[in-house]
Amino acid sequence: MTKYVLPVRVYLEDTDAQGVVYNASYFRFMERARTECLRDRGIDHDRLREEHGVMLVLASIEAVFKAPARLSDMLYVSAAVDDATGARLCFKQQVRRHSADGEVVCEGAAEVACMDARGGRPRRIPATLRSELTA
Amino acid sequence: MTKYVLPVRVYLEDTDAQGVVYNASYFRFMERARTECLRDRGIDHDRLREEHGVMLVLASIEAVFKAPARLSDMLYVSAAVDDATGARLCFKQQVRRHSADGEVVCEGAAEVACMDARGGRPRRIPATLRSELTA
Amino acid sequence: MTKYVLPVRVYLEDTDAQGVVYNASYFRFMERARTECLRDRGIDHDRLREEHGVMLVLASIEAVFKAPARLSDMLYVSAAVDDATGARLCFKQQVRRHSADGEVVCEGAAEVACMDARGGRPRRIPATLRSELTA
Amino acid sequence: MTKYVLPVRVYLEDTDAQGVVYNASYFRFMERARTECLRDRGIDHDRLREEHGVMLVLASIEAVFKAPARLSDMLYVSAAVDDATGARLCFKQQVRRHSADGEVVCEGAAEVACMDARGGRPRRIPATLRSELTA
Repeated sequence: MTKYVLPVRVYLEDTDAQGVVYNASYFRFMERARTECLRDRGIDHDRLREEHGVMLVLASIEAVFKAPARLSDMLYVSAAVDDATGARLCFKQQVRRHSADGEVVCEGAAEVACMDARGGRPRRIPATLRSELTA
Repeated sequence: MTKYVLPVRVYLEDTDAQGVVYNASYFRFMERARTECLRDRGIDHDRLREEHGVMLVLASIEAVFKAPARLSDMLYVSAAVDDATGARLCFKQQVRRHSADGEVVCEGAAEVACMDARGGRPRRIPATLRSELTA
Repeated sequence: MTKYVLPVRVYLEDTDAQGVVYNASYFRFMERARTECLRDRGIDHDRLREEHGVMLVLASIEAVFKAPARLSDMLYVSAAVDDATGARLCFKQQVRRHSADGEVVCEGAAEVACMDARGGRPRRIPATLRSELTA
Repeated sequence: MTKYVLPVRVYLEDTDAQGVVYNASYFRFMERARTECLRDRGIDHDRLREEHGVMLVLASIEAVFKAPARLSDMLYVSAAVDDATGARLCFKQQVRRHSADGEVVCEGAAEVACMDARGGRPRRIPATLRSELTA
């Protein structure tokens, strides 16, 4: 399963007074990568609602911090579809620093629920969508 | 004209790697104070649209930085309606540090346009709304 | 073990174009509650370094989203020390909506590592600090 | 005087419940463009302190909102050094939407003070730095 990798530069807005990237900033970075990962497969929220009658809603997210990132660092933030079963879509994510050894800064995961666009109830991921996601 | 003052604690999320409050954070603080200033007069977005058929849209904002604020500082963020003429509503804002001398950290201003809730065109601030704003 | 509860008002800055509180905002809210939970016990970063020679570093965080929160909602964000063993300090966190039934919006957890303030290596939580944390 | 233009994609994190880009997000975008404008001329904070003994501190910022930007929009955020006299460095900034007509979304300005890196007092911009800035 292919993995999307988004380059992200660390700006002042992403850091905190401890001199490192602030914890919640990693979730902003990882969401950017998931968005581009889906966009790369031609999937966006409008199309999901119109063509498939579904919407994707974040069910849970987590991050494990391995090493600090700092101002001006160039990071590579990846998103890969790890599983797409029933009404659940799972992403594995990683943040690496641009450097000789590509040190892992953070590892994350996100679980997304497929919901009916009207009723807001869980719905199986449509087969055509699933095949696009796991291609 | 009375002035609304909102206490705001500085958390890690508000700071940056230079060890001070990040510039855009002041605009978040000032918007909180404007919101509470309006709420205090019973004004919220739903009521504006339903009772008056208008919506308020931010036209411009500015901030002049006088002194840095830091992690754990307690700030007092004020918002006062400075002018409400025609279709324009102007706020003056100030951020002071909780301390013996109440040092001014930042001074700001915001200009809000009154727009028709449907057409999105400028509209005179309704008289009843104006009197609530300037009471 | 007592639990600290911080009231948090939802402002425009916390929401996103889907009309709900943005996912990373919950981590900002939960960090505010952890900070106040520690401050309430007299623990802050300066004192930790000076008195105990240690610093606390976030090792992992997670959130499970149960229901959406929206603009103007009043939330109650809790932080409770769940465990403090060896060099690890674990918080359990919850975000509830201010309403008759106090609906749970989000459940979270944070794991904090106690590190030597100089060398940056893991260090047992000092006994006096542990007793303050778990009192 | 040349102008630096940074492409910025609008993600969920940048928007608010009114369905548009949140006001303070524009200041994050404009700061990214100023940073890249300086980096492009080989200027960064470490070099300023080491080679010139100065630091740059934000003195004031402002934004005038012309049109709303929305989720998934591609924006072009520019930063141009407008003036560099005495101890003041002024940037003019603009945010345009990627579209046939390149609609202007926001116009901004930032004033930066050159300060002594030790004493924190205003200092004339060093001549070599000034020529790099205005080249």
